Amino acid sequence: MFSKVLIANRGEIALRVLRACKELGIQTVAVHSTADAEAMHVKLADESVCIGPPSARDSYLNIPQILAACEITGADAVHPGYGFLSENARFAEVLEDHKIQFIGPSAEHIRTMGDKIAAKQTAKRLGIPVVPGSDGGVSTVADAKRISGDMSYPVIIKAASGGGGKGMQVVNSEEEIELAFTTARAEALSNFGDDTVYIEKYLSKPRHIEVQVMGDGKGHAIHLGERDCSLQRRHQKVWEEACSPALNEEQQSRIGNICADAMKGLGYAGAGTIEFLYEDGEFYFIEMNTRLQVEHPVTEMITRIDLVNEQLKVACGAGLDIRQEDVVFQGHAIECRINAENSENFRPSPGMITYYHPPGGLGVRVDSGVYQGYTIPPYYDSLIGKLIVHGRNRVECMMRLRRALDEFIVDGIDTTLPLFRKLVDNPDVANGAYDIHWLERYLGMK
Amino acid sequence: MFSKVLIANRGEIALRVLRACKELGIQTVAVHSTADAEAMHVKLADESVCIGPPSARDSYLNIPQILAACEITGADAVHPGYGFLSENARFAEVLEDHKIQFIGPSAEHIRTMGDKIAAKQTAKRLGIPVVPGSDGGVSTVADAKRISGDMSYPVIIKAASGGGGKGMQVVNSEEEIELAFTTARAEALSNFGDDTVYIEKYLSKPRHIEVQVMGDGKGHAIHLGERDCSLQRRHQKVWEEACSPALNEEQQSRIGNICADAMKGLGYAGAGTIEFLYEDGEFYFIEMNTRLQVEHPVTEMITRIDLVNEQLKVACGAGLDIRQEDVVFQGHAIECRINAENSENFRPSPGMITYYHPPGGLGVRVDSGVYQGYTIPPYYDSLIGKLIVHGRNRVECMMRLRRALDEFIVDGIDTTLPLFRKLVDNPDVANGAYDIHWLERYLGMK
Repeated sequence: MFSKVLIANRGEIALRVLRACKELGIQTVAVHSTADAEAMHVKLADESVCIGPPSARDSYLNIPQILAACEITGADAVHPGYGFLSENARFAEVLEDHKIQFIGPSAEHIRTMGDKIAAKQTAKRLGIPVVPGSDGGVSTVADAKRISGDMSYPVIIKAASGGGGKGMQVVNSEEEIELAFTTARAEALSNFGDDTVYIEKYLSKPRHIEVQVMGDGKGHAIHLGERDCSLQRRHQKVWEEACSPALNEEQQSRIGNICADAMKGLGYAGAGTIEFLYEDGEFYFIEMNTRLQVEHPVTEMITRIDLVNEQLKVACGAGLDIRQEDVVFQGHAIECRINAENSENFRPSPGMITYYHPPGGLGVRVDSGVYQGYTIPPYYDSLIGKLIVHGRNRVECMMRLRRALDEFIVDGIDTTLPLFRKLVDNPDVANGAYDIHWLERYLGMK
Repeated sequence: MFSKVLIANRGEIALRVLRACKELGIQTVAVHSTADAEAMHVKLADESVCIGPPSARDSYLNIPQILAACEITGADAVHPGYGFLSENARFAEVLEDHKIQFIGPSAEHIRTMGDKIAAKQTAKRLGIPVVPGSDGGVSTVADAKRISGDMSYPVIIKAASGGGGKGMQVVNSEEEIELAFTTARAEALSNFGDDTVYIEKYLSKPRHIEVQVMGDGKGHAIHLGERDCSLQRRHQKVWEEACSPALNEEQQSRIGNICADAMKGLGYAGAGTIEFLYEDGEFYFIEMNTRLQVEHPVTEMITRIDLVNEQLKVACGAGLDIRQEDVVFQGHAIECRINAENSENFRPSPGMITYYHPPGGLGVRVDSGVYQGYTIPPYYDSLIGKLIVHGRNRVECMMRLRRALDEFIVDGIDTTLPLFRKLVDNPDVANGAYDIHWLERYLGMK
């Protein structure tokens, strides 16, 4: 096992990784910007190194500084968490050049899955169901018309290098396509410096369902079931569940096995998530995230498998000693992402937490990097903690979530706790009857 | 289901019961002494009633006041928690007379199991293995000598109405018996107002192993595995585990099934615990507790069954819909009882908690009724919270416990957290190699 792991991240995920390291007896190095000197992951790590000013570009995204922190402390591996450098193939390569283990898949797999078109082609080759559409970039209006006509409308035009909704155009009929195509290319160019766009079948009421996978890099891989992350606001997941309330057992095991087999075929190493849109019984590949996800705890709660522990074991060469038949799914779990934001207008609310009391008791887990007296800096994303609740079934889970939300106190700043207190009482949420547009409709955004 | 439950207790167990009620949609009534007006269970209950001055005799043990609180609030049931009135048969009867449901077994079963001699006779009749010894009270020195001679020395003389170590005498040879017998009777009379004593085989290095049972009161009963509570100080459990590190699967299921069958025979209703001494592969009945135990969470962690939820369902007549084959034991759990006491001299340390930060993350549960700014009153027992940790196996559980203990901050008062930080690193504890005397030897008490 590694003797010292540097955690190249901040906030709750830095603490999450630190906990897994401690439980394996691994020394930990925290890195932090000057704005994060008082963060909990810094206080709890064995060592810490300041890597720059508040701006993430100059600290958490600063590869030379992180490399220097590894050299200073003698760390033999780096866990990137999520976000920041977690899907930066160059970072993985630079570490490798310096004989420091990147805790994640190969740079090649990161690169392939980071390119939307290459990812889709790879997924298709590996037997993962994909959205019907152009097999690569579309460069003329005529091609766009032909491809869209072969599928049925509506279709969607997307930027190949894009994300976050930019450079996307929904097209309902052939009359609309010329303007949409031109607009999408222009937006793609101005936002991502690359005007390559592609076209896909547009799903009107899909759910977001994703499959957690884990591979040993040598051809053994398993799936750990799916998560339903359909409750989103501006493409940000807000509430995640495992298992999905929309799938039956046959669908769950079918899509799970497809993903596990694909990872075997790829020789994938470590944790990954294969994301799908799901509509009318069919799954359509969106992308693969080659890292730990924010919402990984719901999978941990129903499988009782510590995903970060398994990442560490795979990365150090100890392998993956879990067989598919060892993975038992028990009960239901829900995660609420608690942000330091006003729960009505979602304006960020940095500042000092003047009182903090997390809920406890059976089936309740809190993953948070904050504490009473901690001042949330304004520079980073507003996630301050995750409330994860397990129940023997979805009804028990929802009842437990309601009481845990009632107990949770965060004073001094605005949080999204009041939103979750409303959602847990909503009949659609209670019935699991929502698609990826539900939350924005509910919030009056559409 | 009940519409309103009065919780006749305080501290973490009042909060534990309140959580289960909330999760079932039941209104809650907290009762409290004047010393507990600021307690968390009072703050979180739907209603609260002050039932008297700090002295427990005048508040938490005051049956007329608790009855009045039920009548004022219209509570249709009372959960007694543990301690206080939880094993008071008269309390159960008085409630029944007033058409208020006592959440627990019948008054008759409480009474039988509360009398050590009757309990042992009942256990024997139900097929539960008991310690060899006198079948009832022993009234002459001659009888004491004859009975002790039939077993082999050492033997122990105990007060029939006793508890807490008072009125107990270990006898190593026939020469010692006359003095020990006379002393035990005198102590029994002065402590319990009853000089009846009985004699049992004395076990020199036993473990304390107890079986959790649950019955529907109509002949259906199950066991939920055992707990090992051998780490004790002055007969108080300090650290509890499920399952026991000392038993193999055959032993676990044998003693579990014996207890479940016994409860079927008795027609027992609700949660109960059958306590044993265990030595050299044999179990010896000590007593049965006809209530929830402090250490019930370790069982909940490995079975994922909410015991208070099940108590409520049985008490309201909804029955027990868990079959023995539904009970699956998964992984390992350990509970540390955190007391407001100096961890070296065990002197109580009431006062204000100036900083409180519980640990979080996967597999970590905290059951506590305290919060930052709360002042622990000096009038009651010193338990301020329980840290319960689950792992896929005992090694993972211990590693996780170690890191959770490292994260736990309670400032302003002394706690027993430092003791647990030492125990978790002790090789005997790591190996599960301890008997009921181990902790007192470790603490230099013997």
